[in-house]
Amino acid sequence: MSNVAVKSASTEFGEGSFKAALKFTADRVNEELNRLLPPVLEPEGHVVKAMRYAALDGGKRLRPFLVCAASDLFGVPLVISIRVAAAIEMVHCYSLIHDDLPAMDDDDLRRGRLTVHKKFDEATAILAGDALLTESFAVLANPETHADSNVRIALVQELAHASGAAGMVGGQIIDLRAANLSLDDSGLRRLQNLKTGCIISCACRSGAVVGKAPTELVTALGKYGIAMGLAFQIADDVLDVEGSSAETGKAIGKDEAAGKATFVSRLGLKGAKDYASSLVDEAIAHLAPFGAKAKLLKEAAIFVVERRN
Amino acid sequence: MSNVAVKSASTEFGEGSFKAALKFTADRVNEELNRLLPPVLEPEGHVVKAMRYAALDGGKRLRPFLVCAASDLFGVPLVISIRVAAAIEMVHCYSLIHDDLPAMDDDDLRRGRLTVHKKFDEATAILAGDALLTESFAVLANPETHADSNVRIALVQELAHASGAAGMVGGQIIDLRAANLSLDDSGLRRLQNLKTGCIISCACRSGAVVGKAPTELVTALGKYGIAMGLAFQIADDVLDVEGSSAETGKAIGKDEAAGKATFVSRLGLKGAKDYASSLVDEAIAHLAPFGAKAKLLKEAAIFVVERRN
Repeated sequence: MSNVAVKSASTEFGEGSFKAALKFTADRVNEELNRLLPPVLEPEGHVVKAMRYAALDGGKRLRPFLVCAASDLFGVPLVISIRVAAAIEMVHCYSLIHDDLPAMDDDDLRRGRLTVHKKFDEATAILAGDALLTESFAVLANPETHADSNVRIALVQELAHASGAAGMVGGQIIDLRAANLSLDDSGLRRLQNLKTGCIISCACRSGAVVGKAPTELVTALGKYGIAMGLAFQIADDVLDVEGSSAETGKAIGKDEAAGKATFVSRLGLKGAKDYASSLVDEAIAHLAPFGAKAKLLKEAAIFVVERRN
Repeated sequence: MSNVAVKSASTEFGEGSFKAALKFTADRVNEELNRLLPPVLEPEGHVVKAMRYAALDGGKRLRPFLVCAASDLFGVPLVISIRVAAAIEMVHCYSLIHDDLPAMDDDDLRRGRLTVHKKFDEATAILAGDALLTESFAVLANPETHADSNVRIALVQELAHASGAAGMVGGQIIDLRAANLSLDDSGLRRLQNLKTGCIISCACRSGAVVGKAPTELVTALGKYGIAMGLAFQIADDVLDVEGSSAETGKAIGKDEAAGKATFVSRLGLKGAKDYASSLVDEAIAHLAPFGAKAKLLKEAAIFVVERRN
């Protein structure tokens, strides 16, 4: 075990506002990622430099927050949930590295900084993504993450399912081919659920799994994640039209230029915003079993559609 | 559980010659990969087509053989060891897809067929590799692989360690930068151990892990794997100089053209062959605790330096 004192999560995490809890989680997950990522030892340390550049990049850390907030409902100490959070964030970071590659979305900027293949090179970026994905499973499988191997193996299953061909990678391949697929609304929703929703839902479910929650509560948190994940994605599409590059840290108007269907192009700005709002309501409805304890998760769902970046 | 009848592995696998056992394993692992890989459902099935193209490609299946032969020493039924073998082969196949990419080794041919990015496109190849890596962990974590979650989690740990930044990916990043690193013999050996040896050693160790072998026997099989893996790689370098493209199914003389140091360029053809032979002896010495039962593994070590492709 880590030598950090084990405290009840709710005393250090669950009080105060969502924004404070998000910032608190971000700081803690940055520390944890810094500790978990292998040291930079040359010559192979070159790939670790790129892993660290990608993973320690000042993102919002929404997925880690969701892991910790969901775990907190079951009294899981933050010292445990933060490791699970870090593992899931590694997968998110790997997906961003690979999505940004020239063969994929070909982006030069991410969160206001050079993308990994621009900062290093393409080969290093591909390998850094591969290694982050691999490391996420190493972290979840490590006995320091949880003493019970049944919990650890369930976490591996959740993450592998959410991030593979039936999840995030499946969503990305549809996205790449979307211009030729003439997706209807349901196809577009499926694309977004796979590409973004599955891993957000996985973060929520994993929080419950590490808390040994009963299946129906794991499922409820998973459904919350799917609804809030889709709201999150629609908000992204809205920002792509309405936002400024300075606010979002990336190029603006790319979806339209690429001829990609989004909920904004289908429903118009107002229609997309209304749809996102209804998804926030749906997400919050799934939190009913938790009552007032789920205050932070409720605020998180509202936040994702109101954010400016 | 699969509905294939559970038999003692040794009755169906351990008798007969190495070549017969290798062929037997290859046939079985091909069936297993075909069963384990997700069905092709459009639109995301596009990535599954590429995964299947890469994984069902008629390779020798040396790593699966090693898993099964090592498991067989501990009486593990083939119906179990073949799933572990398939998972490790998925990782091997993912590594070949990514290694072949234009940003890496830029190869058009692999085992006499178009590489994945040539057959499909670069984005699909990157994602197919990502999904194969992810799926390998899903298979290992699945309760159908082994009833004991401690065994499954140990397998995940073995594979994540062998394939990440401290293993295969680390070896690949050194290899890409080798021309600038002026590696000495020890550096070159380290490169090869990371790039090829770790996953071969993992195959051997995983066979022991799934057989709940005592630590010292897991370690012995791991050391066997490191030595035979290095012999295997040196034999590859020899083939790169001596072989014909028709025999190896890939371009010949690429190492020299790329200015890459190999044991052939350092020690000469005869020196490299002698070194490989001494590694085969070393590998076989690590099999001493198993006596005559390790006949197939002994033959495998001899085979890797005598093969013509």
